[in-house]
Amino acid sequence: MLELSLAEIAAAIRARQVSSLEVTLAAIEQAEAAQPLTNAFVEIFADRALDQARALDAELRAGHIRGPLHGVPLAHKDCFERAGAVMGVGSRLLAESAPGTRDATALAKLEAAGAVDLGRLNMNEFVAGPTGQNPHLGDCRNAWDADRVSGGSSSGSGSAVASGAVYGALGSDTGGSIRLPAAMQGLFGLKPTYGRVSRAGCFPRAHSLDCVGPMTRTAEDAALMLGALAGADPRDPTSLDAPVPDYAARIATAAAGSRIVTLADPGAMEPDIAARIEDLLRVATELHGPIARRAFQEFGACDALGDVLSKVEASTLHGHWMATRGGDYSTAVHSRTEPGLHIPAQRYLEALALRGRMLDQFLATVMADADALVCPAIPIAVPTRAEADMEAAGRVFPVVAALTSWTRPFSYLGLPVLTVPIGLDRNGMPVAAQLVGRPFGEARLLALGAGLSAALGWSFTPGLPARIHGDAA
Amino acid sequence: MLELSLAEIAAAIRARQVSSLEVTLAAIEQAEAAQPLTNAFVEIFADRALDQARALDAELRAGHIRGPLHGVPLAHKDCFERAGAVMGVGSRLLAESAPGTRDATALAKLEAAGAVDLGRLNMNEFVAGPTGQNPHLGDCRNAWDADRVSGGSSSGSGSAVASGAVYGALGSDTGGSIRLPAAMQGLFGLKPTYGRVSRAGCFPRAHSLDCVGPMTRTAEDAALMLGALAGADPRDPTSLDAPVPDYAARIATAAAGSRIVTLADPGAMEPDIAARIEDLLRVATELHGPIARRAFQEFGACDALGDVLSKVEASTLHGHWMATRGGDYSTAVHSRTEPGLHIPAQRYLEALALRGRMLDQFLATVMADADALVCPAIPIAVPTRAEADMEAAGRVFPVVAALTSWTRPFSYLGLPVLTVPIGLDRNGMPVAAQLVGRPFGEARLLALGAGLSAALGWSFTPGLPARIHGDAA
Repeated sequence: MLELSLAEIAAAIRARQVSSLEVTLAAIEQAEAAQPLTNAFVEIFADRALDQARALDAELRAGHIRGPLHGVPLAHKDCFERAGAVMGVGSRLLAESAPGTRDATALAKLEAAGAVDLGRLNMNEFVAGPTGQNPHLGDCRNAWDADRVSGGSSSGSGSAVASGAVYGALGSDTGGSIRLPAAMQGLFGLKPTYGRVSRAGCFPRAHSLDCVGPMTRTAEDAALMLGALAGADPRDPTSLDAPVPDYAARIATAAAGSRIVTLADPGAMEPDIAARIEDLLRVATELHGPIARRAFQEFGACDALGDVLSKVEASTLHGHWMATRGGDYSTAVHSRTEPGLHIPAQRYLEALALRGRMLDQFLATVMADADALVCPAIPIAVPTRAEADMEAAGRVFPVVAALTSWTRPFSYLGLPVLTVPIGLDRNGMPVAAQLVGRPFGEARLLALGAGLSAALGWSFTPGLPARIHGDAA
Repeated sequence: MLELSLAEIAAAIRARQVSSLEVTLAAIEQAEAAQPLTNAFVEIFADRALDQARALDAELRAGHIRGPLHGVPLAHKDCFERAGAVMGVGSRLLAESAPGTRDATALAKLEAAGAVDLGRLNMNEFVAGPTGQNPHLGDCRNAWDADRVSGGSSSGSGSAVASGAVYGALGSDTGGSIRLPAAMQGLFGLKPTYGRVSRAGCFPRAHSLDCVGPMTRTAEDAALMLGALAGADPRDPTSLDAPVPDYAARIATAAAGSRIVTLADPGAMEPDIAARIEDLLRVATELHGPIARRAFQEFGACDALGDVLSKVEASTLHGHWMATRGGDYSTAVHSRTEPGLHIPAQRYLEALALRGRMLDQFLATVMADADALVCPAIPIAVPTRAEADMEAAGRVFPVVAALTSWTRPFSYLGLPVLTVPIGLDRNGMPVAAQLVGRPFGEARLLALGAGLSAALGWSFTPGLPARIHGDAA
């Protein structure tokens, strides 16, 4: 039953064709089987999850359905506070910290919608890094090929969902941390509009950029999770009070009339990635009409300005710890964070001030008459773990820079982005596109992503690394 | 009639004992008479103000009263945008800039309440400086003694009101810019709670600190102006949607039951200032009971942290102009602003992050069971212009530092502060206290200030420097 989508298993549970307890038991079994291969979990909440499942089954028998996720096991990146559980944030520093006293808003909302919480997932140390490598917890590995990186920083979220251990997972995304592991493991990963989902109780990387969102095997599943997550939260003053549509209900219709554009100069891409993107543009043209190619000269500037925000905010957060417990940090995270301490405040305020102008310009030019922009998620094939070893000085930069070059500019712009699996690379690993929307355009992105991926013949059976199967016609 | 308060002249106009035209004519005459002595105005809108007054008189004859300021001439610091008028911000750089296309929200609200706009008032260059000295426009001078500084940066606002040219004026306050000229010229100057009054269309000094507020000859007058000004504004996302009480109606009652405290270690003060503060504490004890002396060790830290915010935000705003048109800046403003370019972003974010904690601590300790804190506004007698010459390098620092030492910490804390005239110094110049309130405690501060100042026998007849009269029993 683990091959079913979140929407399918939720329907089966609601119809009492299967109990939450049965599904949760199967999920735990799969998580435990995958763990030696993927290292996706930091902690599996077996007893707690089974108790939850039993209680949800009892509620269902009593005629009460909490919401669209009733009885479905999920698991989440270990950067969300939970009452009674440690939040380790992928670090040595917080690995043994005291259990939390309160649930992060995102977790509380998923629980209110009926989800079972299967555990804490591996991640890059302190939410920093695109590969999923972690010297403290051990690397998280790709569920499609354990010799390849999982993507990060929501590494365990990607591998747990792709391996079929859970039907969906929360990630967080500062410069690509939802999109990269989703892209590398054939998932739909949604970085919502900045402010769409509360970050209360989510450990920050950079507060101006951080977004919380779902990672799932289908667009519909992401829509179900986003529907539970979205909305203003008094605990997060940056959350926005925009209307929350029924994303799942709109997935069949919200793509209608969409006008799609792409970037005029797509930058360097490996040939197999470029070929998949051309496949996508062809299918998108068939479905939605001609696709204009628009120039956006400031794309590189958005990347650099996003880096200023990220480095400054992260280094401020970690400054004291880096000074007093620097040895507890990995080389990779320390070297990515420490330079932020030396950036003048003027540069930071300029990066904040330019953000609105860049967004205005992007919306007025590239997106002038468009609803979505299509572009690659990652311009290179999924690297092997050796190719991307974060702790080997001097080797990491080109790979790391390539991995985030297409994702971070959109974090800076604060726009919603959905990664959509569109085929396989020369190694049989997933290739993904980004669909970038207008602010609060998530419903349309999910509908577009579902249609485009299906039209490309994408399909994907979750499983353990040796047994995973993906295909694109 | 210029000796009447704003409340009194507004009542006389409403009762049609005098027309707005007559009052406005008298105000223009006084403004023109005072101008060679105080240099308070950058531009007197004589024709425009008379047209406004005639229109308001016609409305009144037709039975329409716009609001509590109907027909009353005011004038405003030259840092507010006006449709059809230049906003020079006390600078050479913007002195010849194009006329504005839209009114600042504060001006629009005063106009909606019936005020006549008599002109643009002198100010320190780019809202920076505590003395009112301005090498581009000529110094603004104190209406009580033209050899002494007016206070700044809302210098013209202080001198125009104290000279009787207008019944009230807008100022803006980043670290004391309303409070200092009010204190030095015997006025009530209100820096509202951060976010209480919209800054839309007000030229910034430092956006985290800037507040817009009234400067008047009585507390009741300040209450009338604040009532017109306060409230959330869609044009200013930092404006707050707290209820707006009828400040003027509450001025007779809102002081009841107030518990007042003062600081345990008041720091260095000149003896005549200390004596006036002791007079005030004695009277306050008689009216409101024993006054506890509370320690606040972080007072100096709040001053320093406020300076970080101010310097960083101002230097970012001016960075490009300082690089390309540095010669257009005065030495004083350039030297106060440029160092902000070299402050690391980490220090800035720390100063922002500590702000909430400092406020919590201040409210939980100093203000634990108190409604208002009493302390001096300025610890020294009003300096002569020679003593405070901002362009004479090396001389300015001690005076400037002394002037803002009591005001800036409360800007950092974001709390409402009212300056209250409490007597005269050894030179016959005004001495003022600050009343510091809890967030949104303006109504109580205004009521307390009115009562305390009256109990001290404070009275004040506006006029030209040779003819001004103040007194305190």
